[in-house]
Amino acid sequence: MAAVLALSGGIGGAKLALGLARVLGPGELTVVANTGDDFEHLGLSISPDLDTLMYTLAGLDNPATGWGRRDETWTFMSALGQLGGETWFRLGDGDLAVHVERTRRLRAGETLTAITEDFRKRLGIGARLMPMSDDPVRTRVNTAEGWLDFQEYFVHRQCAPIVTGFEFAGAAAARAQPDILRILRQPDLRAVVICPSNPFISVEPILAVPGLRAAIAACAAPVVAVSPIIGGRAVKGPTAKMMVELGLTCTAATVAARYADLLDGYVVDAEDARSLDGRDVVVTPAAILMTSLADRERLARAVLDAADALRRHP
Amino acid sequence: MAAVLALSGGIGGAKLALGLARVLGPGELTVVANTGDDFEHLGLSISPDLDTLMYTLAGLDNPATGWGRRDETWTFMSALGQLGGETWFRLGDGDLAVHVERTRRLRAGETLTAITEDFRKRLGIGARLMPMSDDPVRTRVNTAEGWLDFQEYFVHRQCAPIVTGFEFAGAAAARAQPDILRILRQPDLRAVVICPSNPFISVEPILAVPGLRAAIAACAAPVVAVSPIIGGRAVKGPTAKMMVELGLTCTAATVAARYADLLDGYVVDAEDARSLDGRDVVVTPAAILMTSLADRERLARAVLDAADALRRHP
Repeated sequence: MAAVLALSGGIGGAKLALGLARVLGPGELTVVANTGDDFEHLGLSISPDLDTLMYTLAGLDNPATGWGRRDETWTFMSALGQLGGETWFRLGDGDLAVHVERTRRLRAGETLTAITEDFRKRLGIGARLMPMSDDPVRTRVNTAEGWLDFQEYFVHRQCAPIVTGFEFAGAAAARAQPDILRILRQPDLRAVVICPSNPFISVEPILAVPGLRAAIAACAAPVVAVSPIIGGRAVKGPTAKMMVELGLTCTAATVAARYADLLDGYVVDAEDARSLDGRDVVVTPAAILMTSLADRERLARAVLDAADALRRHP
Repeated sequence: MAAVLALSGGIGGAKLALGLARVLGPGELTVVANTGDDFEHLGLSISPDLDTLMYTLAGLDNPATGWGRRDETWTFMSALGQLGGETWFRLGDGDLAVHVERTRRLRAGETLTAITEDFRKRLGIGARLMPMSDDPVRTRVNTAEGWLDFQEYFVHRQCAPIVTGFEFAGAAAARAQPDILRILRQPDLRAVVICPSNPFISVEPILAVPGLRAAIAACAAPVVAVSPIIGGRAVKGPTAKMMVELGLTCTAATVAARYADLLDGYVVDAEDARSLDGRDVVVTPAAILMTSLADRERLARAVLDAADALRRHP
């Protein structure tokens, strides 16, 4: 039962994480969530990527929005608006239970890791799910209007400001979640998968936690990423817009270049494969657009096959 | 426009408070809420009596339960249970908005009075509504099983333990809300109304705040209480059970005796009036069971008439 470690942000990454969870045996998969998006709002500790992964892995995700829970109600938000509270960050009634209970337990001194581990068991999630760190890391976005907190940029301003850069406040002092380092040291580790998440705001905050990037580079397993870019476009979210604003070409190759020191394999859509000719990384063309549950499982198998092939023929 | 000050707990008191609000002009009524029931739960600051009064005065109360909001949903509670959170204190999704937003504002340094004043305006409540104090007072119940926090006794244990006494922790150090003292000093104050609330756990916590009892005794207006006991029975809640357990007779007279130093008038049901013969207080028989909205207004008028008569013929 060799372990697979997946790094993921929210929506796109969570789709592949679910595929991996479904094709791997119980206990084989560990998903590391970006917590750079975390923030305090209405006095509550909110971890958007961790929650999207949790809901997705539990089958509780909302397919219409890509975030939050299915079968959600919105009575809280409506009553909050009536009281003059801030309603720009939409919190569903069921979703709120996670934030209230997590906040209570964090204040009582439990770690985000321990709370997440308890929640995932209660929700019947077989894969392990953990934050990249129990210490706060906060992604901040430098824009033409100055520095913005991540959710201010992402949700409140809907990614409208022109991006010039990012910082991961707190990252330098953050300690990697120890279990991640432990898994990365396993000699029979099967694969490290970088899910098709936004490189700037989902994957790089994880890699910014001291020791994680080096531990991934040094691990025994093949490191395989899946491109979040298909045919020069991002499937969802602001990845393409950010690339343009940062003066980067919007290609699968641009994403691969950001992990060049780590990657052994790169799974991309057939139409993007040509642009990666001549690179050091082994490119595997596959159907990477995940629409159905079967798509998620098929891509997960393609990623694991690519890793296994790299392990046999490094 | 002479002021009327009403002291109230939750359900029964709120019915009369609504009646008073409807028969008095805008700005004439100030309702003082018991905050001895307040507690911290799930990391939220909850003020049950204040909220019952607020919802009732705003027409948002739930007539089926007597607490919480109408048109409520329960998605939060259901999701919280799934996560292993505490579900013995039922918090509806809309109700939760009050607790989350109030808690946020209290942590930001606002007073409970200021937050309540803002909420009541936003909810279109014409009467003023204020806590007895901005300092924490916590009713504790001594029982055959030892001391219990109020909500532990009241909600979690459903008033099952045998009561032997009460204490109002923090009361000695609490400062009365200054506006209450200011209103009580008005020479043209029309009436102080003690609503038909439980004496032990709703009215006496208010009277335990230093200075309030003396200010009521010294005020220029008649002090008129409405009996929470009708025909030897409590309309709702544990009043009768507590009286029996404390070795008191379950009569309207027993309640009046607890405010004997304050009362000028006492409005009781016709069938209870006989038991009060020969007391110093002026007894006004009236239909005090409030079923309909018209009942609430009728009783409010009877109470104000009783006060006005006492003012003319003290």
